[in-house]
Amino acid sequence: MTQPAIVAALEPLFHPRSVAVIGATNNFAKWGYSTFASIMNSYPGDLYPVNRHDREILGYPAFPRVTDIPGPVDLVVIVVPPENVSGIMRDCVDKGVKAGVIITAGFAEVGAEGKAMQDEVMRIARSGGIRLVGPNCMGMWSAAANLPAFMFPMSIMEGPLALISQGGNIGGALVADAFARGVGFQQYVSCGCTADIQIEDYIEYLGYDDSVEVILAYIEGLAESNRFVEKVRAVTSKKPVVVMKPGKTGAAARAISSHSGAMSGSDRIYDAAFRKAGVIRAENTTQLLDVSIGFLTQPLPKGRNVVITTPGGSYGVICAEACALRDLNVIDLPASAMETFSSMFPSRWSHGNPVDPAGDRNFVQYLRAPEILLQLPEVHAVIFMGFGSFSGLSSTFASGLAGPRMQMIGERMKGVEELARNAVGVIESRDPAAIGQIVRAALKTVFGSIMVSDASDLEAFVDLLSESLTTERMLQSAFYEDLKALFTFISEGTPENIDIEDVFQLIESIIGALLTGWIQKYGKPVITTTFTEVLVRLSEEGHFPYSSVERAATVLAKLTEYGEYLERIEARGDKQPGGAGATQGDRFGGHLR
Amino acid sequence: MTQPAIVAALEPLFHPRSVAVIGATNNFAKWGYSTFASIMNSYPGDLYPVNRHDREILGYPAFPRVTDIPGPVDLVVIVVPPENVSGIMRDCVDKGVKAGVIITAGFAEVGAEGKAMQDEVMRIARSGGIRLVGPNCMGMWSAAANLPAFMFPMSIMEGPLALISQGGNIGGALVADAFARGVGFQQYVSCGCTADIQIEDYIEYLGYDDSVEVILAYIEGLAESNRFVEKVRAVTSKKPVVVMKPGKTGAAARAISSHSGAMSGSDRIYDAAFRKAGVIRAENTTQLLDVSIGFLTQPLPKGRNVVITTPGGSYGVICAEACALRDLNVIDLPASAMETFSSMFPSRWSHGNPVDPAGDRNFVQYLRAPEILLQLPEVHAVIFMGFGSFSGLSSTFASGLAGPRMQMIGERMKGVEELARNAVGVIESRDPAAIGQIVRAALKTVFGSIMVSDASDLEAFVDLLSESLTTERMLQSAFYEDLKALFTFISEGTPENIDIEDVFQLIESIIGALLTGWIQKYGKPVITTTFTEVLVRLSEEGHFPYSSVERAATVLAKLTEYGEYLERIEARGDKQPGGAGATQGDRFGGHLR
Repeated sequence: MTQPAIVAALEPLFHPRSVAVIGATNNFAKWGYSTFASIMNSYPGDLYPVNRHDREILGYPAFPRVTDIPGPVDLVVIVVPPENVSGIMRDCVDKGVKAGVIITAGFAEVGAEGKAMQDEVMRIARSGGIRLVGPNCMGMWSAAANLPAFMFPMSIMEGPLALISQGGNIGGALVADAFARGVGFQQYVSCGCTADIQIEDYIEYLGYDDSVEVILAYIEGLAESNRFVEKVRAVTSKKPVVVMKPGKTGAAARAISSHSGAMSGSDRIYDAAFRKAGVIRAENTTQLLDVSIGFLTQPLPKGRNVVITTPGGSYGVICAEACALRDLNVIDLPASAMETFSSMFPSRWSHGNPVDPAGDRNFVQYLRAPEILLQLPEVHAVIFMGFGSFSGLSSTFASGLAGPRMQMIGERMKGVEELARNAVGVIESRDPAAIGQIVRAALKTVFGSIMVSDASDLEAFVDLLSESLTTERMLQSAFYEDLKALFTFISEGTPENIDIEDVFQLIESIIGALLTGWIQKYGKPVITTTFTEVLVRLSEEGHFPYSSVERAATVLAKLTEYGEYLERIEARGDKQPGGAGATQGDRFGGHLR
Repeated sequence: MTQPAIVAALEPLFHPRSVAVIGATNNFAKWGYSTFASIMNSYPGDLYPVNRHDREILGYPAFPRVTDIPGPVDLVVIVVPPENVSGIMRDCVDKGVKAGVIITAGFAEVGAEGKAMQDEVMRIARSGGIRLVGPNCMGMWSAAANLPAFMFPMSIMEGPLALISQGGNIGGALVADAFARGVGFQQYVSCGCTADIQIEDYIEYLGYDDSVEVILAYIEGLAESNRFVEKVRAVTSKKPVVVMKPGKTGAAARAISSHSGAMSGSDRIYDAAFRKAGVIRAENTTQLLDVSIGFLTQPLPKGRNVVITTPGGSYGVICAEACALRDLNVIDLPASAMETFSSMFPSRWSHGNPVDPAGDRNFVQYLRAPEILLQLPEVHAVIFMGFGSFSGLSSTFASGLAGPRMQMIGERMKGVEELARNAVGVIESRDPAAIGQIVRAALKTVFGSIMVSDASDLEAFVDLLSESLTTERMLQSAFYEDLKALFTFISEGTPENIDIEDVFQLIESIIGALLTGWIQKYGKPVITTTFTEVLVRLSEEGHFPYSSVERAATVLAKLTEYGEYLERIEARGDKQPGGAGATQGDRFGGHLR
């Protein structure tokens, strides 16, 4: 198979063997300083500062012009005043440069004079076949090249996402937030005024990069929406594209025009174009990341029927509302499930969906509920509420914090010292079977002592948990290092030194592993929510709990929307082989780290 | 002035001299354990566990019945099965108990039989004049009594808010989130099924408590909406009441009925009732806290005209959109302001609202912009964007992290060792005049070396900053302890050991103090947003930055809505003396800690 044209065209941008920074400087108060600093810290290829006056920049030999650089230059990053750019571009053509990132602002977005300068730069670049990012952008990141070519150093990590942003600040905030959540990018391009490479060109390119699983975009305006639809539609049959596009109001349209110089256009027309292209639309940056992480960690639901499990009635209320407002069906429970839950929960349980055991102290039963639901063919997805520190499980432990702080937990843990002594050695052995036995014994001791449950319930539940905890992924995760540390404390008879937060963390890891196991087993989404707005990271088990019911319901609705789109195009025979449906099973491979 | 009836009625609930926990137990697996544990840890009054079998509970002498307790009992907390509650209530009447919190569930919300039990309990309680919280609730908190009478220990702190929640889980999550944000409550009541005391009764009571500045409520359904309107209207003329009420959808209405037993009712009717009562409605828990903190920290705007300042164009775009979607006017700048900004910023600045210097490296000018705007009579509020770690100022420092990590900052700081040596002693002296001089010198050194600015600009700016930093509040805040630590490092010639996050924190404190100073000087809201979704705490300067443009715009819109309501009732002569308008100037007193 020959290389698609777009891949050939953008390869020098994302895999440059050498980079020159034009306008690099030792002056701390200029962007040329922080741009060079951003790149020099991690880019492993040949790096050249270009400065008209200084012969050394931050320890690197500098050159007056790009044509003075001895070796070849694949990519230039330009941080000089706008009036100097066309001259520099002429040098770049002479030098045989292949791609450029123009950070400089003050072109088309400021008016006719700027537009004329921009046209001249473009004319020169085209004459030499140089492809350009920007102008008026914040730079770009390529994980393959380990190249953070930004205006200033940013927190960004490698991962399965890719982002194209027509706003550098929004793009920067997105990658920083993703970093805080523990998820990263193959590529991020702050595409600025898109004088040359258009947003749909980047997306087309990313469609061919198998290491990219979800494509995100922030769009202020498109030059040709038909071209966008045509190119992006070919990508959305293979992987999801999630887009944020402001401009519903005149105030935003005016701000867009002065910012990126784009024509914002009618929101209705954009919405229709996005629908046609199979693009999933997000309303804000949080949604953009939420939905993307949903695509990474969850399968697509086969329909709109959802059941909610909640350890608290009011949370069930607002979650049902959030689902219904997003056209998800909060279905009536089938009679069989009603009977099962009535035999499990106290008589005061909610007797319906949301499933609420109404303060049942037997948390084992609560944790069994999702699997009972996932087995029902009419249930397409489960929202499992109360993950995180305000969940029932954690509160059980928290009650031990009051009064004689930690004493209660400490005493219970002392009962398992013998077990703990063996456990440390077994975990070190990395023998799955032996670890499985220890995990079973530990779970029985812990859950048996803190929870009300009959013996056979507990047995079945421990089977389930230990299965989830001895998968290849879990055995390799930090979970077992943390567990070992806990067992070491207990075996030394010093459980009073255990930090309760570490115990919570282990419990969350256990529940996270359980949920991930169900997702794989039943192929249905299990979306979790915390009871707190404090941000939680994507776990090593590939689990991300959302901090509100609106966020959880939005993610489920958007996953459903994309599933329905894929079904539609499949029915029409539009779908390309090897599309998202085919790779669904691989979503939990190990891309996340 | 005689004490209002509602104050006399609820006083024993919020100021009990003695508390009995009926159903307290040593059994870790029961709610009676964690309820007693929650209270015993902090309540300073007489505390009695009541248990039919055990004579000692968690180290306290226990009694078989409340009538066996030797001293008087003001308040009982009941955690026993529902069928036992009426018998206990008879004992409570005999004992002369004044108030009760019935945590027990399984009454009216489960059907006719439960309703009959509840009616019987109520009949007995009324016969003895006992006022009741619940049933089916999670308990309550009174800061005045230092009483956390919850089902299990929760994170809650004293502060100027009060919360009434018909959902215990939502209430618990709200107080926990408030705790994480650094704001607390005078009272929190999980009011459950409100068999006796109604939501409007609590709100009426809170209206008379001067230590409560903002009242929050989560409502699933009201017994009598006319009574609510009548009682709450008297409160909203004095202080804001912010309410969250789900039930727009059938799914939520069904969940409400099985949860609190309430009739959810038509959302349109509720909306009209809330409007009539002057209640501000929030859509979710985050909004509930956001708007409440807005009321605590900002004055009410005199109109809907807003100007946005942003260090990034795309953030300006989405902020303008968020404002316009909430009926705020993103006004055109007057010619005088256009001229001023054109003389301050590079020619590529946005030339409009949002005010965007378009990557100007001179951050001093950016920080001067809000005050220029606040001086304009047509500007009612400013949204100042880019507070937090992704802000322009912090990124300037961050660029020093790349390459020779910290070296750049370290070298600059070494230049101020002499200053730093003096500074430590001066800060310890707590002499405002001397501290003012040091602060001026430090600011000039720091801002002069990292920013492009001419001397007179810098002088004026430093005047402004040092004024904000030497207020009584700032001098008493942790800011000066942190500053002293920083100066100690520098004066010892070891700036390389400084944690960059601490430097960011100091910069944020400086900007926070500046903003708080402007708010006080001009009496207009200055709402800030970060460029990250990571949660920020309410600062000691009384400043809270919101993590998104939607959140910031929502707060401003709700403040405006309340201001308009107060104007309307003032025009009608409905407003009571000593209302919110009168205390506006005191909002920054020191209630926040």
